[in-house]
Amino acid sequence: MTYTDLKKRVLEANLQLPEYGLVKFTWGNVSEIDRERNVIAIKPSGVEYADMTLEDIVVVDLDGNTVEGSLKPSSDLDTHLELYRNFKDVGGVVHTHSPWATTLAQGGVAIPAYGTTQGDYFYGTIPCTRRMTNEEITGSYELETGKVIVETFATIDENQVPGVLVHSHGPFAWGKDAFEAVHNMVVMEEVAMMSWRNRVMNPMMEPMQQELLDKHFLRKHGPGAYYGQVKEDQDGIHAGNL
Amino acid sequence: MTYTDLKKRVLEANLQLPEYGLVKFTWGNVSEIDRERNVIAIKPSGVEYADMTLEDIVVVDLDGNTVEGSLKPSSDLDTHLELYRNFKDVGGVVHTHSPWATTLAQGGVAIPAYGTTQGDYFYGTIPCTRRMTNEEITGSYELETGKVIVETFATIDENQVPGVLVHSHGPFAWGKDAFEAVHNMVVMEEVAMMSWRNRVMNPMMEPMQQELLDKHFLRKHGPGAYYGQVKEDQDGIHAGNL
Amino acid sequence: MTYTDLKKRVLEANLQLPEYGLVKFTWGNVSEIDRERNVIAIKPSGVEYADMTLEDIVVVDLDGNTVEGSLKPSSDLDTHLELYRNFKDVGGVVHTHSPWATTLAQGGVAIPAYGTTQGDYFYGTIPCTRRMTNEEITGSYELETGKVIVETFATIDENQVPGVLVHSHGPFAWGKDAFEAVHNMVVMEEVAMMSWRNRVMNPMMEPMQQELLDKHFLRKHGPGAYYGQVKEDQDGIHAGNL
Amino acid sequence: MTYTDLKKRVLEANLQLPEYGLVKFTWGNVSEIDRERNVIAIKPSGVEYADMTLEDIVVVDLDGNTVEGSLKPSSDLDTHLELYRNFKDVGGVVHTHSPWATTLAQGGVAIPAYGTTQGDYFYGTIPCTRRMTNEEITGSYELETGKVIVETFATIDENQVPGVLVHSHGPFAWGKDAFEAVHNMVVMEEVAMMSWRNRVMNPMMEPMQQELLDKHFLRKHGPGAYYGQVKEDQDGIHAGNL
Repeated sequence: MTYTDLKKRVLEANLQLPEYGLVKFTWGNVSEIDRERNVIAIKPSGVEYADMTLEDIVVVDLDGNTVEGSLKPSSDLDTHLELYRNFKDVGGVVHTHSPWATTLAQGGVAIPAYGTTQGDYFYGTIPCTRRMTNEEITGSYELETGKVIVETFATIDENQVPGVLVHSHGPFAWGKDAFEAVHNMVVMEEVAMMSWRNRVMNPMMEPMQQELLDKHFLRKHGPGAYYGQVKEDQDGIHAGNL
Repeated sequence: MTYTDLKKRVLEANLQLPEYGLVKFTWGNVSEIDRERNVIAIKPSGVEYADMTLEDIVVVDLDGNTVEGSLKPSSDLDTHLELYRNFKDVGGVVHTHSPWATTLAQGGVAIPAYGTTQGDYFYGTIPCTRRMTNEEITGSYELETGKVIVETFATIDENQVPGVLVHSHGPFAWGKDAFEAVHNMVVMEEVAMMSWRNRVMNPMMEPMQQELLDKHFLRKHGPGAYYGQVKEDQDGIHAGNL
Repeated sequence: MTYTDLKKRVLEANLQLPEYGLVKFTWGNVSEIDRERNVIAIKPSGVEYADMTLEDIVVVDLDGNTVEGSLKPSSDLDTHLELYRNFKDVGGVVHTHSPWATTLAQGGVAIPAYGTTQGDYFYGTIPCTRRMTNEEITGSYELETGKVIVETFATIDENQVPGVLVHSHGPFAWGKDAFEAVHNMVVMEEVAMMSWRNRVMNPMMEPMQQELLDKHFLRKHGPGAYYGQVKEDQDGIHAGNL
Repeated sequence: MTYTDLKKRVLEANLQLPEYGLVKFTWGNVSEIDRERNVIAIKPSGVEYADMTLEDIVVVDLDGNTVEGSLKPSSDLDTHLELYRNFKDVGGVVHTHSPWATTLAQGGVAIPAYGTTQGDYFYGTIPCTRRMTNEEITGSYELETGKVIVETFATIDENQVPGVLVHSHGPFAWGKDAFEAVHNMVVMEEVAMMSWRNRVMNPMMEPMQQELLDKHFLRKHGPGAYYGQVKEDQDGIHAGNL
């Protein structure tokens, strides 16, 4: 019994990162979970996208034990696992150092919803985590990174705000599967770019009207959605017809 | 009797959007009207540009009733229709979330004519609409979006300023046909970019001289135009020889 | 007796503009002069780069009379001619609306020499012209544009500063031939970009040291030049081995 | 006995510069040293990347005497040599005018470590040299440039901070070989870009926490490194599995 289909999807989703201009070198990783078998496929650590093959993809269980593959999994694995353990509807996770989102993460600022582009995908502000403590950094750093993300979403629904900036580091995004996670990362990079430009032009910039945010998010997500062609997909985290 | 030619033009104009770098994913739509038959062809909702075929293009009447095609039209259809009903010389309409124009729309600021690049196509400031009211947003939102655009042009000639920023949302542009609409959107994105840079460098930036604006707009448009090769095209909304 | 070689060069130099990302649509034009015959070949007005053929290139004399070609020359022809009449060592002229140089032209600011990238090609500040008067604009506008450029270089050696920003309009550059003119335009766009970023980061930004400017300009230009392989080319406006 | 392998590597590393978007025209050069034979291969002066062949690469000794090749070496050769003479573990050196690093060099500002992207490669601030004196500029300028770089690293470990901005000029980077030098230059350009954006958004921007910098640098470099697949490479200047 193999995990070929899951690994194929994860390989393809990882290869989308350079296609979308989200990564340089090996600066990113995508994973996907099979919730029935509780296994996760993830990019190996430090392998170039151009060289990556199906065999390089590593399959692990929810405790991080390798169940298939001979390479070391991404050094960010423990962050992914913590998200899967806590965000029960999430099926795919992605991390990059995409430049606009990373700039805001370095600056320690969130991405408020300034317009409908963000509102079509994120139901409000994309938060930035607090700084990590010295104990967290010198301890199980990657695991603690996941814990700080989960802490940040204590009062935010991760299904409605499928992404975060990790302070002084960079963005993570997620979705119902690996491809939606990457899709949401593309959107996050775009709205990060625009929000930086809005902040620089107007340091007093205010978020958009709540009613307009409601309108745009809800016309694409949830039972009343009317955007796109495929109604039956629209009750997941995101409409499949983005 | 089919609408094949109209649909072909609209398909081709829609495919120009990713070519010109104006859209990510499905974030845009182009339509064109046949003024003799009063039918409009428009992009379907939520279909990827890479997958779009002639059959996917939807033909509707001025009330939005589908007269050909099996897919749902773009969710922004009612905005397009309102523009066609009110802007009698307009033959094509385009909407995108192109990043520079969208940034300014989010900021709620107009694009003043700062130089001849804008003056060659737009006879003055490209306006930004007012915010929509809660009633407009929770009512027939896409129709009301069109009405707010029309209201914005109460004292502006839409044939001389073929584009607008919708507050907190993004740009719409138009022209004598779908291709000119896309062309004007490319110009709007370029002047939006430059105007942001001018504002950031000099928050006290003033518009260009009126005489220089007159000179540039009128050497390309109207009876005295002398730019380009084809004089007979130059009395439309725009010279065809841009 | 035909002008085929001159036209070939001018066609090729014009096609470099979209290759270098300096133009959108038809927003640019290159010309070259044959100083022995006193004829100038120039891009036709309003013709798309993708469609342009050798036959479309227009040859005119120094008074602007067409000597070969059936299309109208670029509407900016009179500006080019004025530069050739006054800048005796100049063999090629180019005009674009490249976005960074155009932004600064709109802002009415010059490009001071902030670093060696500029100093390798321009011996000091690239100036911005004064605003044109209403009389100049409503008169022989394109000719007057040339005159204002020439006026700007009353105290600047055009062979050492081969470019200018025209206020509220965009850049012109020149060189010993059409290709060097385009090359200098590429450099001008690059240093315009960097100078905008330096101004925004530090509004009090000062030009580089004069000694460093001397060193870099003179190691590439003039009798003491030692950059590159081909010494004999280095006493022109520019070294040919850029 | 020839130097073919060394020249092949240097040719390939030079050709990476335009691939990574780090250079326009001939604005860059890469060299590599063979520490056993004490010879350096370097790009020739002023030769276009598109035209460069293996025969064009020049081999010199540590005093700059040509030992193979008929072209003049890069005019920046003496800077490279000074770095090889003083930075004993360095095997490759690269210089470019990449726009973001050059903008900061023009501004005379360093690149503080604002986030983990920088911390993964540079153990702290990437410094900017002091201005050169008039004596240094008018003397052996390229040699003096190298001396000012070495002076800047009097209290910095060049193996932990493999790059520098030369005031009013542009960046130099290095590594264990030519390819790692280019790799580090790509990183420097990326973090230069982000640091400019952080500075513009927040002029009071502070560097990242020291603990987080320690964590990221040391998980990729040195005996405790655990990033990537190939442990045995991780005790050089940089892990080979970047």
